[in-house]
Amino acid sequence: MTFKTLHSHRHHLGWDSGNPPALTVAPGETVELELLDASGNRVQRTDTHEAVLNLKAENANPLTGPLHIEGSEPGDTLVIDILDYALGDWGWTALIPGFGLLQEDFPQPFLHLSTYDPATVRFADDLRLPTRPFAGTIGVAPAEPGCHSAIPPRACGGNMDIKNLVRGAQLQLPVEVPGALLSVGDGHAAQGDGEVCGTAIETRLSIQIQVDVIKAAQQTLSRPMAVVPEEPTVRGDKARRLLTTGIGPDLFSAAREAVRFMIDQLRKRYGMEPELAYCLCSVAGDLRISQLVNAPNWTVGFSVPDDIFH
Amino acid sequence: MTFKTLHSHRHHLGWDSGNPPALTVAPGETVELELLDASGNRVQRTDTHEAVLNLKAENANPLTGPLHIEGSEPGDTLVIDILDYALGDWGWTALIPGFGLLQEDFPQPFLHLSTYDPATVRFADDLRLPTRPFAGTIGVAPAEPGCHSAIPPRACGGNMDIKNLVRGAQLQLPVEVPGALLSVGDGHAAQGDGEVCGTAIETRLSIQIQVDVIKAAQQTLSRPMAVVPEEPTVRGDKARRLLTTGIGPDLFSAAREAVRFMIDQLRKRYGMEPELAYCLCSVAGDLRISQLVNAPNWTVGFSVPDDIFH
Repeated sequence: MTFKTLHSHRHHLGWDSGNPPALTVAPGETVELELLDASGNRVQRTDTHEAVLNLKAENANPLTGPLHIEGSEPGDTLVIDILDYALGDWGWTALIPGFGLLQEDFPQPFLHLSTYDPATVRFADDLRLPTRPFAGTIGVAPAEPGCHSAIPPRACGGNMDIKNLVRGAQLQLPVEVPGALLSVGDGHAAQGDGEVCGTAIETRLSIQIQVDVIKAAQQTLSRPMAVVPEEPTVRGDKARRLLTTGIGPDLFSAAREAVRFMIDQLRKRYGMEPELAYCLCSVAGDLRISQLVNAPNWTVGFSVPDDIFH
Repeated sequence: MTFKTLHSHRHHLGWDSGNPPALTVAPGETVELELLDASGNRVQRTDTHEAVLNLKAENANPLTGPLHIEGSEPGDTLVIDILDYALGDWGWTALIPGFGLLQEDFPQPFLHLSTYDPATVRFADDLRLPTRPFAGTIGVAPAEPGCHSAIPPRACGGNMDIKNLVRGAQLQLPVEVPGALLSVGDGHAAQGDGEVCGTAIETRLSIQIQVDVIKAAQQTLSRPMAVVPEEPTVRGDKARRLLTTGIGPDLFSAAREAVRFMIDQLRKRYGMEPELAYCLCSVAGDLRISQLVNAPNWTVGFSVPDDIFH
């Protein structure tokens, strides 16, 4: 497959519909984006705890892009198939004063380095995790003029930190501006639901995607949605989940959003009556906190296994 | 194995430390409890939607028990090993007006029946789920005098609806009154994280447990904790997760509680420094909404796979 390539020096800070496109891509084309890590590659392999104090919020979460997607207009849906990731062999996890779920409990800077190969992260000598790389931030430019922080996710995506967006996932985003202006950043080698300390295994990463557009006449979305691989289970690699999102400053409201969204999708996809879909959500759907650290907006993910539909 | 047995006619409504014990059990003994379903077996296989209107809150969630556990005192930890479940072949899911996450969207009563065998729930002709039976409510009597609703969970357990409490799970509860006064109810044949509509696949169920006591001198808990089977994955049947809980009326606060709890456990179990434990939580821990329908207290479960510790 031939990829267009966008290198990481073509990055920007914050979301701004005024950013000039770094690359123009047609629906159906494939692109490889090289991502800086969330620190802009400032964290080095030899760093110690004190290095965390040099991380400035205004430099955080640089995004490679934006990509102008030909023919995409406000109201359309941008479809992003995640074909693959390529990554290095080390990453970092930091406690950043004033950031994270338990920031009052952990006022001191802390930096932890991990190494990994394609299968396994060595978090410590006696601690191994599966390597599950994904981009924490995938989004399009918001319509609202000006430069908006890249820390909180929004209705058009961004820093959602949904760990399910691994290779094989398909993400759909509502387009708010002409050309969509897609950008990606925040590579993670592994993350738990919640990303509770505010960082994952932060890493330099490349992502290979294929983009497509669904016109507004066919579908409109108000929030991100995805089809994601099942976490590795005995169901086999082909198992999938449909995942809907709720995004906002209140977890309870976000959870309600995500579930309403799923019911609507089950109706559209399978013709289910809302009441039955609601019951199915209760007995087969998983409500998870994808993140609650990217203030002021949290991500709730709600997913239903695909293979229950025969 | 020889079990003491407690039949479902020995049930009570609400939690009350004044309830006389239905059975006395010594640490190490095994017990089989027969559970009424959450409706007190009022829902019948031939029922239609209107039957939901006959369900009264004051009759909801009957609990089989209480068991007096010999030698358990306030401050101790009650250990409950879930050895097995035995269940029938059908269950129900209801939308109950005024109950559930989206109650404003679904004001009408609705009843849905499922059938199942030990492996598979037939939710509908073309919808199958794995059968994963568990008791939604496992708890001990709160110290506070009087009769307390069995709907919300509390620090001493109760209606937590943690779907991970399947066969092979071990639940630990803080004891608040002499003899602990353990009761169990609310059988589910399957449930998703969140139990969003307010009911799961509600079912009649028997549970076989072995009880033990950890004295306060050795361990004190302030909230429920469990070691639960990994959901079926390629990691194999032996894979486990450590799960901590946050319980309360605010999901964000509950999430913080659950994560703090995990950090403390990682320190106690593995001698991890809190900072490293906090990082590990961020990259390997899963924060899930177990339920947000049992007003006024929600359950957040936080779990870390056991097999990452080598």
